[in-house]
Amino acid sequence: MLQENFTLLIELLGTVAFAMSGSFAAMQKRLDPFGVLIIAFITSVGGGTVRDLLLDVPVFWMHNMLMCSVIFVTSIFSMVFKSLEKKFKVTLFIFDSFGLGLFTIVGIQKGLSADLHPLICLTLGTITGCFGGIIRDILLNRIPLIFRKEIYATACIIGGSAFLLLVKYSSLKYVIVQVFTILLIVAIRTLAVKYHWQMPKFYDAEQNGEM
Amino acid sequence: MLQENFTLLIELLGTVAFAMSGSFAAMQKRLDPFGVLIIAFITSVGGGTVRDLLLDVPVFWMHNMLMCSVIFVTSIFSMVFKSLEKKFKVTLFIFDSFGLGLFTIVGIQKGLSADLHPLICLTLGTITGCFGGIIRDILLNRIPLIFRKEIYATACIIGGSAFLLLVKYSSLKYVIVQVFTILLIVAIRTLAVKYHWQMPKFYDAEQNGEM
Amino acid sequence: MLQENFTLLIELLGTVAFAMSGSFAAMQKRLDPFGVLIIAFITSVGGGTVRDLLLDVPVFWMHNMLMCSVIFVTSIFSMVFKSLEKKFKVTLFIFDSFGLGLFTIVGIQKGLSADLHPLICLTLGTITGCFGGIIRDILLNRIPLIFRKEIYATACIIGGSAFLLLVKYSSLKYVIVQVFTILLIVAIRTLAVKYHWQMPKFYDAEQNGEM
Repeated sequence: MLQENFTLLIELLGTVAFAMSGSFAAMQKRLDPFGVLIIAFITSVGGGTVRDLLLDVPVFWMHNMLMCSVIFVTSIFSMVFKSLEKKFKVTLFIFDSFGLGLFTIVGIQKGLSADLHPLICLTLGTITGCFGGIIRDILLNRIPLIFRKEIYATACIIGGSAFLLLVKYSSLKYVIVQVFTILLIVAIRTLAVKYHWQMPKFYDAEQNGEM
Repeated sequence: MLQENFTLLIELLGTVAFAMSGSFAAMQKRLDPFGVLIIAFITSVGGGTVRDLLLDVPVFWMHNMLMCSVIFVTSIFSMVFKSLEKKFKVTLFIFDSFGLGLFTIVGIQKGLSADLHPLICLTLGTITGCFGGIIRDILLNRIPLIFRKEIYATACIIGGSAFLLLVKYSSLKYVIVQVFTILLIVAIRTLAVKYHWQMPKFYDAEQNGEM
Repeated sequence: MLQENFTLLIELLGTVAFAMSGSFAAMQKRLDPFGVLIIAFITSVGGGTVRDLLLDVPVFWMHNMLMCSVIFVTSIFSMVFKSLEKKFKVTLFIFDSFGLGLFTIVGIQKGLSADLHPLICLTLGTITGCFGGIIRDILLNRIPLIFRKEIYATACIIGGSAFLLLVKYSSLKYVIVQVFTILLIVAIRTLAVKYHWQMPKFYDAEQNGEM
């Protein structure tokens, strides 16, 4: 019961975080209020929707007015207090990182409940965490965040792996593993941005070439 | 029976309208005939496909050769009479608006049949109306229509809300509510383009900034 | 039994081919290793995933660790031996064409097993063959290959039609029809690129105009 409530809570917090990040990105591209609402919605539910379609379980927001209302209220709030973005840029970045961590762990848990192989669960976690933002960036015609300098999917994959290993091999309480791995994802991403960590990249000899 | 036939008719008309708009957009980007056919298909069925996947009901065109044949014939017709586009630019715009209105109402109806909350139905209607065009624009590398100046999703949402309110609270015949709200969506969009209506937008202080 | 094994084999070969093409495209865009892995995965499974969602059957890679391991190993291999790309450009092109042919036929077969109309099966085959590459190109912000000069979807559609006709009207062994039509798709695409075959295109009078 406590367990269930905690999972719902992290799903809600992740939704608020992503709805905010979607709203601000849409306002920066000067969409009208309905456009902002649509982008906030897609950013929040995109990853989880793809995950639920893949798992062939009911799509989580279709029967969940709480989730939809939260997105709606968050989006309106972001539009009204849009000046917040500049004042709280750091706060928003941390929010977005929490969304990433929260959604990754929720995705992995849904995969585990469906008795899937840990690597497939890790894939589902990464999809849940990253796809909302990828679709947002494609719609807004931005270079997908996941492919820019910041460590994003990498944080997902490392945190998700830690979660799977700790659940399987440690004797820690489940809720502690959840909190620890979410904080791990937030920490990796925050430190990566602060200290300009980058994964090594592949350079093409013909740097101007296009296939 | 009459009811069912009418719904099928509006679905077919919307399909023709969107297949035309997809074909002409693809020809403008100078795709070859098969490319035009593929874009016409995706524009017509894209929104309804996403809706049916979300509802977990059989995807409407998979067992419906009528729908596929209509798209095929419309696309061939558009390729043969491509000069029509310039002569009938206004007609085509109205067609596209009808497609939007027709598909929005079909989407809402499918949501209502699945006993979903009205706001979820409105979301499904907006998805059915707008997603085909969004996918078309992403594939053709155009700025998604929905995010350009024209009122598009806004027309969807206003018309869809009117439909839901009238179905619930008015004593009008169902078919009259259908026709009225479809015409309302067409009217909003047409008047918006004619008189350059725009929703207010959010301007960023750093107008050249990119997050 | 032999039949089943052969189908599995062609699915695996197609997966290797597409995972390679995805990895090399991602390395050209200088993604980090996890980004390369994600693009390789999406390119390989994208088309089949959309097909399985449309058919409402379990998504093929969710319970198939073999497929996922093959993609993982292929992607690592491509990153380690990335210099191979330049030396074996022609080999890689042929691999990609084989992927296209293999996946098209697998898609049609899955449609036939679900008792769908031949034209719907052809659509599913085209989706299985082409969508992985389309999604890859959208994510990497390249002009989708399918809409560039090369004959791509056209090869799919011609080969797929031949497959359907031969299965229905010829007395050839099934496996021979499979091999022949896969080679036909590879041949059409290879010859098209070698001899600069193009489908006729539609030119707009206002060549600089944008709708």
